[in-house]
Amino acid sequence: MSAKLESMRLELRRGILILAVLNALKQEQYGYSLRKSLQAVDIDIEEGTLYPLVRRLESYGLLDSRWSSEEGRKRRYYQTSPKGIETLQTLQTDWQQLNESLVKISEANK
Amino acid sequence: MSAKLESMRLELRRGILILAVLNALKQEQYGYSLRKSLQAVDIDIEEGTLYPLVRRLESYGLLDSRWSSEEGRKRRYYQTSPKGIETLQTLQTDWQQLNESLVKISEANK
Repeated sequence: MSAKLESMRLELRRGILILAVLNALKQEQYGYSLRKSLQAVDIDIEEGTLYPLVRRLESYGLLDSRWSSEEGRKRRYYQTSPKGIETLQTLQTDWQQLNESLVKISEANK
Repeated sequence: MSAKLESMRLELRRGILILAVLNALKQEQYGYSLRKSLQAVDIDIEEGTLYPLVRRLESYGLLDSRWSSEEGRKRRYYQTSPKGIETLQTLQTDWQQLNESLVKISEANK
């Protein structure tokens, strides 16, 4: 069961991570600082999960990116694109509705 | 994009559906009545999605089930098992934490 519980927990997390990343990247950030800002709100996500997700969102056109050199260090910066903001709003509305549904169903079945 | 947006919306929904079903089935129900009770809280889910999910949760031991005949109609009734209640509590705690994280990150990036 414990592997199945883990898979359900991951399933629950997966959709929410998209929302968290699109939110966090309203301010331009590079990978490591994005990860830190997620950790700051208690979302602990491994690089091996976060970076592929970022690339996936970029490939969907939801993130803009650029290379930048600072202190001789080349980094790729990401920021939520206008299309990403629009998507975020749709997903956030879904999220709120799902939240309300869950509260109702859990109240109804106490 | 619209297909990708749909896939992200589904991803967001998928984890939550597990929570909704485990909650709804604290009271014993058969498939159709479960679907109705989800619709009552604005979760509209097709039979082709709901019934495989129910069978999956049953195969994990999270639902108990029995056949019952009423008015000459044989129906399979489902109810969240003790293990299902335990799982529901874990997932519900995860859900609340993820919610708090999302609120924080969205406040921080207004």
